[in-house]
Amino acid sequence: MPLILPNPTSLDRMSAPSESAPRFPTAVYAGRLRRAAELTAASGLDALLITPGPDLKYLVGSGAASFERLTCLVIPADGSAASVVVPTLELAGLGESAIGDLELAVHDWVDGVDPYAVVGSLLPTPGRTAVAEAMPALHVIPLTAALGAPPVLATSVLRELRMVKDRAEIEALRRAGAAIDRVHARMGEWLRPGRTEAEVAADIAAAIVEEGHTGAEFVIVGSGPHGADPHHEVSDRVVQAGDVVVVDIGGPVAPGYNSDSTRTYSIGEPAPDVAAKVAVLERAQRAAVEAVRPGVTAEAVDAAARDVLGAEGLAQVFVHRTGHGIGLSVHEEPYIVAGNRTELVEGMAFSIEPGIYFRGDWGARIEDIVVVTADGCEPMNTRPHGLTVL
Amino acid sequence: MPLILPNPTSLDRMSAPSESAPRFPTAVYAGRLRRAAELTAASGLDALLITPGPDLKYLVGSGAASFERLTCLVIPADGSAASVVVPTLELAGLGESAIGDLELAVHDWVDGVDPYAVVGSLLPTPGRTAVAEAMPALHVIPLTAALGAPPVLATSVLRELRMVKDRAEIEALRRAGAAIDRVHARMGEWLRPGRTEAEVAADIAAAIVEEGHTGAEFVIVGSGPHGADPHHEVSDRVVQAGDVVVVDIGGPVAPGYNSDSTRTYSIGEPAPDVAAKVAVLERAQRAAVEAVRPGVTAEAVDAAARDVLGAEGLAQVFVHRTGHGIGLSVHEEPYIVAGNRTELVEGMAFSIEPGIYFRGDWGARIEDIVVVTADGCEPMNTRPHGLTVL
Repeated sequence: MPLILPNPTSLDRMSAPSESAPRFPTAVYAGRLRRAAELTAASGLDALLITPGPDLKYLVGSGAASFERLTCLVIPADGSAASVVVPTLELAGLGESAIGDLELAVHDWVDGVDPYAVVGSLLPTPGRTAVAEAMPALHVIPLTAALGAPPVLATSVLRELRMVKDRAEIEALRRAGAAIDRVHARMGEWLRPGRTEAEVAADIAAAIVEEGHTGAEFVIVGSGPHGADPHHEVSDRVVQAGDVVVVDIGGPVAPGYNSDSTRTYSIGEPAPDVAAKVAVLERAQRAAVEAVRPGVTAEAVDAAARDVLGAEGLAQVFVHRTGHGIGLSVHEEPYIVAGNRTELVEGMAFSIEPGIYFRGDWGARIEDIVVVTADGCEPMNTRPHGLTVL
Repeated sequence: MPLILPNPTSLDRMSAPSESAPRFPTAVYAGRLRRAAELTAASGLDALLITPGPDLKYLVGSGAASFERLTCLVIPADGSAASVVVPTLELAGLGESAIGDLELAVHDWVDGVDPYAVVGSLLPTPGRTAVAEAMPALHVIPLTAALGAPPVLATSVLRELRMVKDRAEIEALRRAGAAIDRVHARMGEWLRPGRTEAEVAADIAAAIVEEGHTGAEFVIVGSGPHGADPHHEVSDRVVQAGDVVVVDIGGPVAPGYNSDSTRTYSIGEPAPDVAAKVAVLERAQRAAVEAVRPGVTAEAVDAAARDVLGAEGLAQVFVHRTGHGIGLSVHEEPYIVAGNRTELVEGMAFSIEPGIYFRGDWGARIEDIVVVTADGCEPMNTRPHGLTVL
């Protein structure tokens, strides 16, 4: 794979995105940048410094993944225009982002220039800066030296912004949910006795892309005793008649929003005890979904699932949190877990995925993504929730 | 995808790796840790702090990819034993690494504990620490606060170590090279007129895994005018009779070492001018390979390719560096580029990949990985270098 030398470049290489460009309309990003500046000011900070990662994707629609050379979005808190520092040889990689249409000033640099000094020169005053969580030490440390003061984390500002989804994001999550539901609907094509988990998973991964995702981010196929381990991904175990199988799958759809849905399958008719316990799990999952509405705390939703399982003696076998936020990252705020008193707000998106795990024997998990509405929630996943017999 | 709550765990969960574990024998890592401590001391540093990423994989064979919660290898420069700080719920993820067999002290932590203070308590003295380049700001910033002093980058120590490959690494690079050569050998199965670049690339990606890689890290299929853009990956362009096609592919083999090889194909007999120019490129690539031996500078190898192209009036169309180091990362030191006066040493591994690019028309690139030997180099790739007619 070649490395590109600096070429004579200019801003006209950053042409407007084509219709298939994987991002939202420019106005969406303009609003996000404005709110980011406001929240930065409200936090007593002078500027945000954002390197490639989900925060950069959120703010300007750039999927840039450069590491070695500094690419950095500079957002002053005083409301003056944001700007971008980028290696000249990576200018073309910003072409699909909103940076051109937003008319942000772009300061490109070639080897030999100190890009950290360039960032420093763009700050209205040498003040208190906050950096993206994902910024590598490779850049944090020279930036600290150039700014003369250690930055803080931009976590609070970005969490506040990214945790509540806007209309365009919810529409993307709907498309992601429908796409992964189509994959679950086809499970009988692949999940059959005599095939290994890995073979089934390879077919599922291909179908995740066929059904509209840009990639398969994760594929968990936990058959028989493997279903009892929530850590399990896939293995060469051969699926057998009588197995209970946990299938937890997802990936991103353009412009980067993720699906994540789990269903549990039975290869042939399940034993009565298994069917009864999965029916309790289904009630627990539904109870948590029904508990969701604005003003309820994240931990109350977790408790709603846990209470149903506890009443049937299954509290001890539900060994993980009830859910996690989802969006540009598969795991983000808010976490649906005991101790999280964050109050739900319309537009938050997260998983509800209780599970029951019987070590060495079998397990089950049921997972939907839901988005908080004015008076409850909208599930992104609508496949039947109970044990599906294949 | 579920998040796992802390469970009662103990070190016995970190059992010895199975025979299929994707790492080298334990003694390899013991030697690396010893040399890392020596180089750290020689750099005037007191400790290395290494979070998940290629450096952690190099030092202890761990492919851990955790982000949110701190996992950190602590290597004191005074020769006292290294130790590991890890979230209790991610202990199992270290099971395949050498950490158990090395009998490193493992300090696991649950939510509520300050892991940065734990790291601080493991340092012999509050001194000068160096952190992995990949450590995210999420950890660098609280660690700086806990240690009371900003760390520096561990770059010089890790570059020194990783740049010169040992016998086990060279053997892994040989396996990677042979595997990607087998994929190139099968190119006629997929690269045919009437198919899109994306369809061809999907088949290549599957074959990369079939031939022994653990994944397809990158697949570039640049047909016709797309071959003139070294940035190009794949598209929906349909391959046509008469096209020249650049195919640049690679991925890791266990335990994580990468292949990377480019060949250029012609769909039907090439025009005489194309054939003549690719023959010059082939000579340029061979000249650079033949220039490699201990004591020669990286930039002299770059110049060897550039001189051949320049003598035929093709200097202006060779727009990138001649090569990059390779190992656990696809791009690492040493870079084969003008200005890099690093002298080659036996065991260094890097690509030699000159290319010629005619904008809007066609392009070609020829790439092998080579490993420096006592008196020259050993190519990891041996497929015919000239234009292969399909």
